[in-house]
Amino acid sequence: MFDNKDKTEINELGEFGLIEYLTKAVELTQSTTLKGIGDDAAVLDFSNKKTLISTDLLLEGIHFDLRYVPLKHLGYKAVQVNLSDIYAMNGKASQITFSIGLSSKFPLEAVEEIYEGALIACKKYEVDLIGGDTSASAQGLVISVTSIGYGEADAIAYRSGAKEGDLLCVSGDLGGAYVGLQLLEREKQIFLENPQIQPDLEGKDYIVERQLKPEARKDLIQLFETYGIQPHAMIDVSDGLASEILHICKASQVGCKLYEDKIPIDPMTYDTAREFGLDPTVCALNGGEDYELLFTVPQDAYDKVKNQLDITIIGYITEEAAGCEMISKSGNVHPITAQGWNAFKK
Amino acid sequence: MFDNKDKTEINELGEFGLIEYLTKAVELTQSTTLKGIGDDAAVLDFSNKKTLISTDLLLEGIHFDLRYVPLKHLGYKAVQVNLSDIYAMNGKASQITFSIGLSSKFPLEAVEEIYEGALIACKKYEVDLIGGDTSASAQGLVISVTSIGYGEADAIAYRSGAKEGDLLCVSGDLGGAYVGLQLLEREKQIFLENPQIQPDLEGKDYIVERQLKPEARKDLIQLFETYGIQPHAMIDVSDGLASEILHICKASQVGCKLYEDKIPIDPMTYDTAREFGLDPTVCALNGGEDYELLFTVPQDAYDKVKNQLDITIIGYITEEAAGCEMISKSGNVHPITAQGWNAFKK
Repeated sequence: MFDNKDKTEINELGEFGLIEYLTKAVELTQSTTLKGIGDDAAVLDFSNKKTLISTDLLLEGIHFDLRYVPLKHLGYKAVQVNLSDIYAMNGKASQITFSIGLSSKFPLEAVEEIYEGALIACKKYEVDLIGGDTSASAQGLVISVTSIGYGEADAIAYRSGAKEGDLLCVSGDLGGAYVGLQLLEREKQIFLENPQIQPDLEGKDYIVERQLKPEARKDLIQLFETYGIQPHAMIDVSDGLASEILHICKASQVGCKLYEDKIPIDPMTYDTAREFGLDPTVCALNGGEDYELLFTVPQDAYDKVKNQLDITIIGYITEEAAGCEMISKSGNVHPITAQGWNAFKK
Repeated sequence: MFDNKDKTEINELGEFGLIEYLTKAVELTQSTTLKGIGDDAAVLDFSNKKTLISTDLLLEGIHFDLRYVPLKHLGYKAVQVNLSDIYAMNGKASQITFSIGLSSKFPLEAVEEIYEGALIACKKYEVDLIGGDTSASAQGLVISVTSIGYGEADAIAYRSGAKEGDLLCVSGDLGGAYVGLQLLEREKQIFLENPQIQPDLEGKDYIVERQLKPEARKDLIQLFETYGIQPHAMIDVSDGLASEILHICKASQVGCKLYEDKIPIDPMTYDTAREFGLDPTVCALNGGEDYELLFTVPQDAYDKVKNQLDITIIGYITEEAAGCEMISKSGNVHPITAQGWNAFKK
């Protein structure tokens, strides 16, 4: 991270100085960006395409714990979490704004790390940083990201488009980010009780990375385009599979059958959940922060999705009256209930 | 404001419940909004116009003091401050996202007041609330607003468009918001020292309102359209006239002459500044938060602007080498320096 010996106090620079300093590395690469940072508003040109907008707030002590989240990862994750919402519309993410509120404990070098992480994400995902706001914060670190993208009217996938008979599909695997968080929390407790003991995360890279450095599924949107797959409905898995399924079913006025044995769970997620005495399925259903895409496709897309290594068919859409149910591994039927992450829970 | 007896705790509702509750009054009125709240991203249609985006962060203890800012005013102001950036591009504001981070001390009724203020602003300015994020905050109140608008490519006014010989103009009057803040701060101190004494703001409505309930200058953008005025360069006055003039001159690579005796200052602002032992001109130059529009027009627009009651010609644009100077009332020449508001100042 950073060494306090080398720290530069932000108030030496002032707001405009800070913005100039932080944004000197910003390059505009997107043809849709006419004007980025440096005016009252950014100017974008999506010609005849539809504009997509999504925004997220990330607050210290609620969404992240600076005791184990490296600042560069935090900047990276803040961008990913937001881009994920644009991809979840089957859109192309093209710009973000990045706002930050900084308590005085942050030296310039710390803020730079956050920005560096954000810019790495922008570069990798081919997105322009076009604006934001920079302020002192009387309390903790505040990050607010707005992501902007575009899509053709008939390609945009809403939550409300699922139809009876659709296949219910998910990308990647689930529960890893949640189990990774449990691991980080445990090591934090051990460290707080005995600072001599270094965190033991060996061999747990995958789930730690799922928590600290998630990747939005831009690749899936490209895959849809390549294979001519048009999702009927789509949502990103930020609050847990159960919650997202219910969102789609409610918005689409349909029901669904979910097969527990089809839910994709990585072996490391499975084993570590067991270590913690947790049910891996519950971690996938209610864990959240996986940023995979949950979507439905018509049955005639079956051949196109079944051979994609990174897509799993986990169930199907039914009529609304049939409800939202999970068929367990033992064959029992359970109603799906959302116990996803709630920022307001005490 | 609200009575703690009637308070409802937010965690009883949960995040989705809270969003549903707060947004039940949201109506979509703009033809450019295809989808508002309720999906991963909002979907907008600006056909072949350019998209404008701006974002601001408002943090408790930095940008507002809840001891004298009514919550409804806060919601209203948060929206105005942001819309102002779209108008400053000579654009039409059409949507906002409104995100809020709430400490547990806030009951539902308090959050409702903030939203109510925001929605009043949306309705008055014909802007749709299309999304946002709602979270608990471990510290103070956090508000983040992103405003979205559109404009024709050749109508958009950048900071960089000022030309030598242009007239330098400003709408409304300046310094009022700053002097209003001094008044509110003084009454707060008196109240803190002796809670029996009620704030004495009688006869000071105008400047108190300038601080607590600013109005973005949508009307000016409409006036430009009606009279066929195309500003060469424009910026909104959020950090003080001096700072904004320097922004335009730097971005446009020009200099300017500003006449102190032309700076529009309301009599109440003038008298109250004097009461506080402040120079009214300094309040206008460095005070900030007036949310008026500063712009330049070519000389041939002189006839069009000179008869507008709400526009004052305060100077003109020179070549860059001549620098940015103010001619004082006594005829002395001073370089213009920015001492605008700095959130990082200790």
